[in-house]
Amino acid sequence: MPPRNQTFLQACRGERPARTPIWLMRQAGRYMPEYRAIRAKVSFTELCRSPDLCAEVTLQPVDYLGVDAAILFSDILVVFDALGIDVRFEPSPVIATPVRTAADVNALQWGDPHTELSYVYNAVRACKRALADRVPLIGFCGAPFTTLSYLVEGQTSREFEHIKGMIFSAPAVFAGLMENMTTLLCEYLRGQVLAGVDALQVFDSWAGALAPADYREHVLPHLARLVDFTRNLGVPLILFVRGNANLLALAAELPAEVIGVDWSIDMDQAVAITGPNRVVQGNLDPMLLLGPAALVERKAREVVAAARHAKAHIFNLGHGISRHTDPALARHLVEVVHSA
Amino acid sequence: MPPRNQTFLQACRGERPARTPIWLMRQAGRYMPEYRAIRAKVSFTELCRSPDLCAEVTLQPVDYLGVDAAILFSDILVVFDALGIDVRFEPSPVIATPVRTAADVNALQWGDPHTELSYVYNAVRACKRALADRVPLIGFCGAPFTTLSYLVEGQTSREFEHIKGMIFSAPAVFAGLMENMTTLLCEYLRGQVLAGVDALQVFDSWAGALAPADYREHVLPHLARLVDFTRNLGVPLILFVRGNANLLALAAELPAEVIGVDWSIDMDQAVAITGPNRVVQGNLDPMLLLGPAALVERKAREVVAAARHAKAHIFNLGHGISRHTDPALARHLVEVVHSA
Repeated sequence: MPPRNQTFLQACRGERPARTPIWLMRQAGRYMPEYRAIRAKVSFTELCRSPDLCAEVTLQPVDYLGVDAAILFSDILVVFDALGIDVRFEPSPVIATPVRTAADVNALQWGDPHTELSYVYNAVRACKRALADRVPLIGFCGAPFTTLSYLVEGQTSREFEHIKGMIFSAPAVFAGLMENMTTLLCEYLRGQVLAGVDALQVFDSWAGALAPADYREHVLPHLARLVDFTRNLGVPLILFVRGNANLLALAAELPAEVIGVDWSIDMDQAVAITGPNRVVQGNLDPMLLLGPAALVERKAREVVAAARHAKAHIFNLGHGISRHTDPALARHLVEVVHSA
Repeated sequence: MPPRNQTFLQACRGERPARTPIWLMRQAGRYMPEYRAIRAKVSFTELCRSPDLCAEVTLQPVDYLGVDAAILFSDILVVFDALGIDVRFEPSPVIATPVRTAADVNALQWGDPHTELSYVYNAVRACKRALADRVPLIGFCGAPFTTLSYLVEGQTSREFEHIKGMIFSAPAVFAGLMENMTTLLCEYLRGQVLAGVDALQVFDSWAGALAPADYREHVLPHLARLVDFTRNLGVPLILFVRGNANLLALAAELPAEVIGVDWSIDMDQAVAITGPNRVVQGNLDPMLLLGPAALVERKAREVVAAARHAKAHIFNLGHGISRHTDPALARHLVEVVHSA
């Protein structure tokens, strides 16, 4: 059964539904007391691996906020289970054995996501059952570069010196790693679609680590292969390349149905780059939700107004919601966007 | 006596010297064994407070690399000495008592930089004596927003949730803090010029924490006052607003003699924004110095070629040099730029 609330999928197709659809990146998370109640009982990793609990937290913001899409509760780093690599969340992710040399790369065991990540697919099915066709379900993965940046750096990085060192000093090693990671992610996304997701988002969260010319040379061809692959999966793709507004023009060269826009660029300027024939998603600064309701209302309406020049618009934050957000204000934002 | 090597100051004035001047942000630092030898004996804070040792490390890259300007060895956070606020370097800066509420702000004691920071002015004089007019000496400070981001966050931040929370929820408190910090920084820069620096650089290193519209509303007026103030000091100003290429156009609205460009934008695009009548500084990605010499040569020449469309160009990295850099490759970069 198609979801009864079609506004998100209509916007993905470039139609302009009666009201602007909205969901919030990281909408299932620590700012919600219902989420914290579950995390008081299980670790982040246990939660990701429990399909029923995933479904429960995936639905929390659908119930409370009234958003127009659910996004599978998971993490971009679970794909490392297909390589037998342990990730600890402390709470930032830490990989005890980062992959930095050609020998490290050669020693990697590339497993099959369809067996190693079956718990994700079970979570997708549990979410779809629990949603009972209320709103669409979004699946996701990290982009090849962002996923590898964790593998090579071993943790969240500021300077990305290890992966940039690899790109500049051993470009063939890096390219081989990107090739294998892209193939794995293609299969992982295919599995999510087979399990039932209605749309996909690819997060290149650390794209901003690279200058535009280097991103074009070393990253974009692999990302293009991933985007091309998803076009045969039958669901729309949201491509979110974060952290450098100069990369937006590069992202917009790829045929993803929707271009995600982060908060670092004003929406009118983003639409000037992506053009009138493109669907955009974004881009309220999540930290604005630490301010008063009147400011949130004004800024949200500015985003909606600026995005009218795009082909269609899915409202979202320009980055994940802060854990310090008042859930009531997030709910108010949803109402404001729906009535804008 | 004016410095004998005038190429840097000529470029600041918009002239095109016979060869492109170059210096490297954080050129006195951990990648140099001569620097590490001194740091083995004294802490970072002791080093900043010792004029003779400051002069010694300030001159190390002048001697070894052959750069066309020296930059005072110091830290943007030493200004907190004028507020009686302790900063520990662990090695990232940590302020044990961050300033987050209106009460915190009201309790601040704004001291006089001319007494509390006299050790910096003594370091300037020691550097000038040691340089013996070989190359110009650059003084610097953090921009008001960047300096305050440390004061409010208490440490290097990723999300800047405390200072952004203050901006959005208590804009008048933030504006008052910016006002006072800007006044302090004006006086601090004046003191550096009186002590003998030949040029100034203002680092808005964390500008990219804010969306362009918010930067314009909450930060730019204060930065404009600082820039205007320096115009009466008789030395050129380099304004370096880092972390979001969309802020480059805002920075270029201010009448600083030189606009610093970070590595996140291709230089040809940066020059298209700053225009043919502006002097630019930058912008090689420092991580390129982790790659082979041939790549550094090619990328450096691309930057020099792209910057020919600016009024003048001071070559620099687009961010501080990495501590993993081979000093010999940094020296080679200087030769490449001088012969480009």
